Parts: sequence; C-alpha cells; structure tokens
Amino acid sequence: MALRTISAKSAAALDQELMSTGAFSIDQLMELAGLSVSQAVFKLQPLTAGKRILIACGPGNNGGDGLVAARHLFHYGYHPTIYYPKQPRNELYQRLRKQLEDLRVPFTDDFHTAIKSTDHVVDAIFGFSFSGEVREPFPKVIEALRETEVPVLAVDAPSSWGVDEGPPAEGPGKGFMPQALISLTAPKPLVKWFKGRHFLGGRFLSPEMAEKYGLDVPEYEGLDQVVEVEVEGQKL
Amino acid sequence: MALRTISAKSAAALDQELMSTGAFSIDQLMELAGLSVSQAVFKLQPLTAGKRILIACGPGNNGGDGLVAARHLFHYGYHPTIYYPKQPRNELYQRLRKQLEDLRVPFTDDFHTAIKSTDHVVDAIFGFSFSGEVREPFPKVIEALRETEVPVLAVDAPSSWGVDEGPPAEGPGKGFMPQALISLTAPKPLVKWFKGRHFLGGRFLSPEMAEKYGLDVPEYEGLDQVVEVEVEGQKL
Repeated sequence: MALRTISAKSAAALDQELMSTGAFSIDQLMELAGLSVSQAVFKLQPLTAGKRILIACGPGNNGGDGLVAARHLFHYGYHPTIYYPKQPRNELYQRLRKQLEDLRVPFTDDFHTAIKSTDHVVDAIFGFSFSGEVREPFPKVIEALRETEVPVLAVDAPSSWGVDEGPPAEGPGKGFMPQALISLTAPKPLVKWFKGRHFLGGRFLSPEMAEKYGLDVPEYEGLDQVVEVEVEGQKL
Repeated sequence: MALRTISAKSAAALDQELMSTGAFSIDQLMELAGLSVSQAVFKLQPLTAGKRILIACGPGNNGGDGLVAARHLFHYGYHPTIYYPKQPRNELYQRLRKQLEDLRVPFTDDFHTAIKSTDHVVDAIFGFSFSGEVREPFPKVIEALRETEVPVLAVDAPSSWGVDEGPPAEGPGKGFMPQALISLTAPKPLVKWFKGRHFLGGRFLSPEMAEKYGLDVPEYEGLDQVVEVEVEGQKL
C-alpha cells in the first residue's frame, strides 16, 4: 500500500487542528501515540526474542510518546529502561515520568552503558518538529544509535534527520538508518529515504481530516493501533 | 481465575489516588477505560455478527467511557449510535462528543426505536459511583435494556444495580441481567450476583496499587486491554 506524505509544516498544522477544532487533548493524543509505539515494538520484538527495551526520550512530545510507550511495554511484560536527560518542567511529562516511577521502571543517565545490555532501542528523541542542529547531550546518543547492532525503532523520524529533507549530509546522524520507523498520524517526506520496516499509527483520524490533509487511511487489522505500510516513492 | 472485589468506597478512593499521587489525568484514564470497553465489544460481537452498536451513555464518567468506546468502535469498522440524554457542561465530555460528531457518529433521542435496530447494546449509564434511585429519563431505558433480546454489555455495573448490594429488589432494574459485564480496574461486589461473561480492563495499574487495594492483576494476553475472568464467590 502506498501512502502519501505530509510536510513538517502540514504535520504541525494537523496536530494543532486535532487539539483545537478536533477537540483532542494532548493527554489523549499522547496516550494513543505511545500506545501505537508500544504495539510496533511488540510486533518487531516479540517477548520471546528479548525483553529489554531501552527508550531514549527527547525533551518534547516525541519523548512523551516514548514515556507512554514504556508504560504499556512494562504491562506487556517487557523490561523498559528510560534515558531522559532533558526533562522540561512540563506537567504532562512529569506525570508520565511519575507513572513509570510507580512501576519501578529504571531511568539511566548512562546511555552508552545501557545500550550494551538491551535487546531493542526506541528512538523517541526528536519528532516532526525537529529542525536545525542536534544539541547536547544528543550528538553522542545519535552516534551510538547509528553504530549499535541492536535494532532501533524510530518514532516519527530517525532523530537528526530533516523531516522534509531526510538524512543529514553531515553530523552525528550521517549514515543513521534505524531498522524500523513508526510514523504517527501520517508519514513525513523523510520516509522517501528510509529503508526498513515502516509502521503507521493514528487510528483516530477522522475521514474528513484525512481528506483535508490529503492523507490515506490504511486498513488496520482487528484491534491494532498500528499497521505496517509502504510509502509512495519510497527508495527501497 | 478468581479475583477479589473492591467496594464502591474503595473504588472511589482508588480512582482518586490514580489521579492524585498516581499522576494519571482523567483524559488518560477515560481513554484507556473506553479502549478496554471497545475491545470487550469486539470480543463479544465480531464485526461479522453485526456492526450496529447502540451505546447508552449516562451523565457521569461511565457515560464518558461509552463515548470513548464509540470512537474506537467506529475505527474498528462498527456503526455506533449514541443515546446521551443528559449531557453535563463538562469540557471533557463535550470534547469526546465533538470527536464523535466529527466522525459523523449519529446521536439519537429515541432509545426505544434505536434498540429495535441494533445488534448489540453498551450500557454505560451508571458506574461505580451510582447509588440511590434511577432518575428520568433512565427508568424506561433500563426497562428496555432488561427486556431486549439484543445482547447487552454493561460497563462496570449493570445500571440500577447497587455497586455493593447487587440487583435491586424493585424498580426498573429488577430482573435486569446483561449478557456481559466489563469491570474497570477491579470487579465490584455486585459481580457476585452477575451471571454472564465477565471481562476486566485496567492494564495500567501498578503492582503496588494492586497490592494496596487487595486486587489481583490477571494475565492479559498479547496487546489486549481486556481479559475475560471469573470472580471469587460468583454465584453461577
């Protein structure tokens, strides 16, 4: 199935519209986004293949999606560990963190040690609002993601990639190609350069919103909150 | 599997604790509750067995759970219809309603006609905070639920049942026995009188909270947000 993509600018407008006229709260959208991320992990990394999941969370909503995913993964039976070096004073993110602390999910400051003893990594550092440069302490984290042999699932974008421009020509993300990507609500233009398994989450979008933004709504199976897809123009 | 029950008073305390020290928002909890209700419907009423789902929503959180369930059911491919006669000026419920309107999910004022052309009913009228008498316009609705031959799934409690006391000795709910019940977070004492299929939702409870409230956490399968259970002392 070939899906159309949505630019960084349109993705921001869609997100804003979901939360204004669409009447979704950020809590609701983040819960649904994180749930779909957790389901993609479940499909990529069955419990029998290794339960240790390292989740790298950035300072924005992409990181929040990672925190929600970690909670669901714990309840599925995984052993998540969180790397969350930049924690803004945002009430929602603080609550999501507290929910993990109550589950005794460990937080680590040492990504480089943690990545050596995990079975899977979730890259929830930067999402569709990323642009410009990768700030500290993330350059070395992205290098580690690029170099690890452990499979990586990127949330919405491989961190450091331009949302519309794809992989960077230089810097820590040069040559970074995660094994899998989950696009939230709609694929961004960067998927044209992505080589790997590609999932879509966002089983809440109304047909009218999809039409307005020129999006395809693929067929999800059963109760799934994710669907594996291909993308039009994808350079495989 | 036999599960312990939680009294109306303890259920209220647990709910309060989830939203205070537990750091969950009502949006989050309602999204997860409604999601688990939608999954119970999916298990009870496969799409191939009839897609029309009539959802009766009460004025409180039980009704909110029904609104969330309706949205998910729409995305699974069902055709939900909502009966929501008492709509409080609560921002959350209004947003959940708007999300359904954007999906063109119909709202009806005429429950008695609607129930004649549906394949399944969800009773999301009263939940664990119900006590006392059934106010207008719900007595006739509960009578219709009691008398219909269409299968009914009750959310947290068959409406009009006492949470701790079970089925009423008189009034519209006398003799009302839905085909199925989904208990949210934990079964209430009323399940001792319930005869039918019984599901549990609440795959977010921490082991510590479960221990504090004397609850059993059953094993959910895969990605499921519901699990079918039996209850200790259930009078089958």
